[in-house]
Amino acid sequence: MIAIGVDIGGTSIKGAFINDKGEILTRFSMKVEKEASAEDSVGKLCDIIAKAMDEGGYKGKVKGIGIGCPGLLDIDNGIIINSPNLPMWSKFPLKEFVEKRLGLEVVINNDANVAALGEAKFGSGSKYQNSIMITLGTGIGGGVIINGKLYDGYKHQGGELGHMVIHVNGRACGCGRKGCFEAYASASALIKDTRAMMKKHPESLLTQIEKELVGVDGRNAFLAAKRGDKYGMKLVNDYVMYLSEGLLNFCNIFRPEVIILSGGIANEKEYLIDKVADYLEENHYGFIGSPKVEVVNGTLGYDSGKIGAACLILFK
Amino acid sequence: MIAIGVDIGGTSIKGAFINDKGEILTRFSMKVEKEASAEDSVGKLCDIIAKAMDEGGYKGKVKGIGIGCPGLLDIDNGIIINSPNLPMWSKFPLKEFVEKRLGLEVVINNDANVAALGEAKFGSGSKYQNSIMITLGTGIGGGVIINGKLYDGYKHQGGELGHMVIHVNGRACGCGRKGCFEAYASASALIKDTRAMMKKHPESLLTQIEKELVGVDGRNAFLAAKRGDKYGMKLVNDYVMYLSEGLLNFCNIFRPEVIILSGGIANEKEYLIDKVADYLEENHYGFIGSPKVEVVNGTLGYDSGKIGAACLILFK
Repeated sequence: MIAIGVDIGGTSIKGAFINDKGEILTRFSMKVEKEASAEDSVGKLCDIIAKAMDEGGYKGKVKGIGIGCPGLLDIDNGIIINSPNLPMWSKFPLKEFVEKRLGLEVVINNDANVAALGEAKFGSGSKYQNSIMITLGTGIGGGVIINGKLYDGYKHQGGELGHMVIHVNGRACGCGRKGCFEAYASASALIKDTRAMMKKHPESLLTQIEKELVGVDGRNAFLAAKRGDKYGMKLVNDYVMYLSEGLLNFCNIFRPEVIILSGGIANEKEYLIDKVADYLEENHYGFIGSPKVEVVNGTLGYDSGKIGAACLILFK
Repeated sequence: MIAIGVDIGGTSIKGAFINDKGEILTRFSMKVEKEASAEDSVGKLCDIIAKAMDEGGYKGKVKGIGIGCPGLLDIDNGIIINSPNLPMWSKFPLKEFVEKRLGLEVVINNDANVAALGEAKFGSGSKYQNSIMITLGTGIGGGVIINGKLYDGYKHQGGELGHMVIHVNGRACGCGRKGCFEAYASASALIKDTRAMMKKHPESLLTQIEKELVGVDGRNAFLAAKRGDKYGMKLVNDYVMYLSEGLLNFCNIFRPEVIILSGGIANEKEYLIDKVADYLEENHYGFIGSPKVEVVNGTLGYDSGKIGAACLILFK
């Protein structure tokens, strides 16, 4: 069985023909013009897919198209309600449009859920039936897999893991509330904290590292910590604490077999993955003998979106 | 179809023969002697059930026995690992013992989950397939119903809703961590806050109300608020805020159709249920058109445990 997985981003659309072993057979991609109408952009995407289908001899072999989308979606009806990064796509009936053009079934879901499904099926979570993937980026995206299936709540309106409040009346979050998980544990939160620490302690190694990396991103704090800088270490330890406290909530609620972290920061094995695993082990609620929750990083990288989108069809 | 539902408490065991409409046909109960061995207590329970079965003419009509238990359980194997209120019951193979004695299938689960299942099937949640019940008592117990089934996580080790941290490094919780939901939103937390407020503001109406009610429980703050006392109102508003912030996390994660609150406090309609409903409506994450989450109080009262326990069998 073959499915097409499409990953829609703010600047480009990437996709692939993927078999039921999760192997990528043929890739395709296109740039997205912000000013172009959704009809034009998706029309072009359909042309590219149709051409790849012809060239690859996939006609008659493809079961459907899964699409991971950013923004707020009406998943049942396959409509993009509103997408901040693609304003021209608001209210666009994506599923209907592509189904009509290509004559294949289309299933959409949000990008974080789709990436989680990809890692769960063909990445770090493939050994497990119960996993949670958390993407540490500008915000925190997350997806929950229960008994091998994506769980996103009643009418697909749950699974908003990044907007779990971990500090009532705490830091302002982009969503309008205060104290959300992503206001403390996203990559952006770490960068903000790093800048604040540099301002407060210009004598720290962080100042030197900013020059070396030509800027501040998720790496600076970890690099400073590894070189023994106490301010870098404090940033890392605080970040691990907030991230772990949020993850512990998911452990106590879902008790997954594995938590998969993705995003650039998740490449920090010793200073992040291992520290988080220890924190969870020491602080989880439950009796002795509760199943341990593994903590790993994602292995599919940028392909998790495409592969996960294909999984919407492959594991329907 | 008939099932037996048993609700084990720290001082008594109550149970009933229940039909598949959730109707209680015959009740039974017994006192639990703290010093008695689990074998003796459960042996006595089996005798009572056997006698009730004879007298009621239920022989051959009962499909099994569901039991709601306090404490830490090995649910798959039907073993009570450790129960703080029934120390003599530690490591007791409840399922095996009762099955051998009565020749009926036994399913156990924890008391909070079981009560949630009862309300979901035959109480306030019976119209819905997706509900969360929260019991506001000494702690916070909770149960999650997804698509009509009890969800308690991988190996039954999730569903610990009371120990979701809503304030990292906040108030100490009985579980050893800090900032748990139940440290802010249990009835005990409200009582603690009420006492602290009375100490700080002895001039408040709370002092008078303590005399009237001969003590402090979950009602004092609400009564003071209703009579216009500003300190009582502050207690109620803060309590509503903490409770709602925790419930919002469950909304964002599960997006249930209904949240059922139980425990004495949940009888406060105007000052609790309605206020919480408004708070959720105003602050939930999601796009316009997200399904509204209803907030109601439980309707089965003390019977939720028995009826829910029977549901472990009726909806197996």
